[in-house]
Amino acid sequence: MDRLIDAIEAADNPSVVGLDPTPHVVPDCLVTALEPEVAREVDASELPTERLAVAYMEFNRAIIDAIADVVPAVKPQIAMYEALGPAGLDAYAMTCGYARSRGLYVIGDVKRGDIGSTAQAYAAHLSGLPVSPGGDAIDVWHEDAVTVNPYLGSDGIIPFVTAARDHDKDAFALVRTSNPSSDDVQECLLQDGHRLYEHVADLVSDWGSDTIGDHGYSRLGAVVGATHSDEGARLRRRMPHTFFLVPGYGAQGGTAHDIAPMFDDRGSGAIVNSSRGIIGAWRHGQTLDPSMGVEEILAVVSRCAREAAISMRDEIRAALA
Amino acid sequence: MDRLIDAIEAADNPSVVGLDPTPHVVPDCLVTALEPEVAREVDASELPTERLAVAYMEFNRAIIDAIADVVPAVKPQIAMYEALGPAGLDAYAMTCGYARSRGLYVIGDVKRGDIGSTAQAYAAHLSGLPVSPGGDAIDVWHEDAVTVNPYLGSDGIIPFVTAARDHDKDAFALVRTSNPSSDDVQECLLQDGHRLYEHVADLVSDWGSDTIGDHGYSRLGAVVGATHSDEGARLRRRMPHTFFLVPGYGAQGGTAHDIAPMFDDRGSGAIVNSSRGIIGAWRHGQTLDPSMGVEEILAVVSRCAREAAISMRDEIRAALA
Repeated sequence: MDRLIDAIEAADNPSVVGLDPTPHVVPDCLVTALEPEVAREVDASELPTERLAVAYMEFNRAIIDAIADVVPAVKPQIAMYEALGPAGLDAYAMTCGYARSRGLYVIGDVKRGDIGSTAQAYAAHLSGLPVSPGGDAIDVWHEDAVTVNPYLGSDGIIPFVTAARDHDKDAFALVRTSNPSSDDVQECLLQDGHRLYEHVADLVSDWGSDTIGDHGYSRLGAVVGATHSDEGARLRRRMPHTFFLVPGYGAQGGTAHDIAPMFDDRGSGAIVNSSRGIIGAWRHGQTLDPSMGVEEILAVVSRCAREAAISMRDEIRAALA
Repeated sequence: MDRLIDAIEAADNPSVVGLDPTPHVVPDCLVTALEPEVAREVDASELPTERLAVAYMEFNRAIIDAIADVVPAVKPQIAMYEALGPAGLDAYAMTCGYARSRGLYVIGDVKRGDIGSTAQAYAAHLSGLPVSPGGDAIDVWHEDAVTVNPYLGSDGIIPFVTAARDHDKDAFALVRTSNPSSDDVQECLLQDGHRLYEHVADLVSDWGSDTIGDHGYSRLGAVVGATHSDEGARLRRRMPHTFFLVPGYGAQGGTAHDIAPMFDDRGSGAIVNSSRGIIGAWRHGQTLDPSMGVEEILAVVSRCAREAAISMRDEIRAALA
């Protein structure tokens, strides 16, 4: 986790912007303005997905340019791209690649998890695709870290930890998620008196324990939702070598006050994500209208995203001060 | 689940072939034989991934043609394609589309799971991408069902159940997986005396309960590994309206004897998957050599896969008789 922590320290900002484009958060007028150019490049049957894929990519590029000197990292949520089919995943990979080219650490929010041999295949997100014995792997997705799901146990996680160690990358396992129904499974009371998520927390600590870096955190972090402040504080003590990825800030209801206890006493140990609060900030700003060109639309989107990212940074700095 | 059950009855065969290509299971000589044609179509930088993606597609096409009149369904494991990056996911979508064109029911083994708004995006696997109000959605992945992960609770599952109901499709939630480390989380003993996977089984039964079809099974099935025969038998009684997808047969160690208790007393209620045992059957058959052409290689792969699929069908029929 050293690369991420170094990037956070350089920006003096433990926050990450979620790049989760949807037809709702990407302006309609941007899609429409880009459409003639897309229509010249693709078959008519591909236009409905390609017009969104291209709009997502242009939207992301503008956001990335606007925030690259404010935040250390971005977190594209692959589901939003996968909803467009293969064309969307091209846009996902290009988004990751572009963010890295601007110096950002890229957390692919993929939440993959499967049996050992399959997890090994998914670990190509971190290791790349080996193409010849002894040759370099091809980096097919351009991520620095991914999120993973622990329901299948160690088989499903260790391939990611190994790939992370071998390729100087990281992973974050779901422990306590931010959504309202996360209690259904994660809060189950075990016979030993612990909750299931505490048991998972112990597994995650253990699975990462051979990969603790210079800053004291392992290469296997934990996802701990901002909407569970008290539990997050207890988890912070329970897993002192596990870095937290904290979603649920902003649109989902988590506040700077809620996330403060998830940090260690040096102000490290966590990075807080906001998605809609940053990339959808234009919806609360200047009105877009259909007469605007692509550059004008993106200028509004960019300015609003930058202002929101700076506000979030300052709120978190104040809460940790 | 009615469409799947009808297809199983028509084939008199409750088995599904896993289409999980890897550089190990797809013959090297096939990749090499196809390479000159691929090299003419793509940039040199794309060749390492495209050569595998094209080989996977041709391999799958041959297998699908060889088994389309033997089995009712196929289950491509998306991780194997995702390991190649975006080019692999094109091959995944084309594989699903080709299998459907041959009349097969397609179970996309994607094991997705996320918070509600994100699960909604992933549910496009079943619902397609809505392109205009009132217009038809575009089917971007060509699946009839997908597998999903329950760790996030109902938020992460209900969007798939809703999409399944609205589009005559299905989903299968992980309950008890076939891998060695599945005990790490799934076997946790709860304070009420149940194991965690039993609690998840009850949730899955409940989440699907509004979608029970003509054959008595809901649109939300359960993944129950063949490697847990006794637990599978108990789960069969515990969730009488939940159809089982049973992985772990063959290469992972499950036998026809192990899977029999997962069926109901009419011989329905489950479908058993084998992947490597079918698509890798050529490795135990006639030797392939580098002098063979594409058609010759695929003829061997096809014949071996068909024989293995027929053997599996007959073993399962005998076990259920």
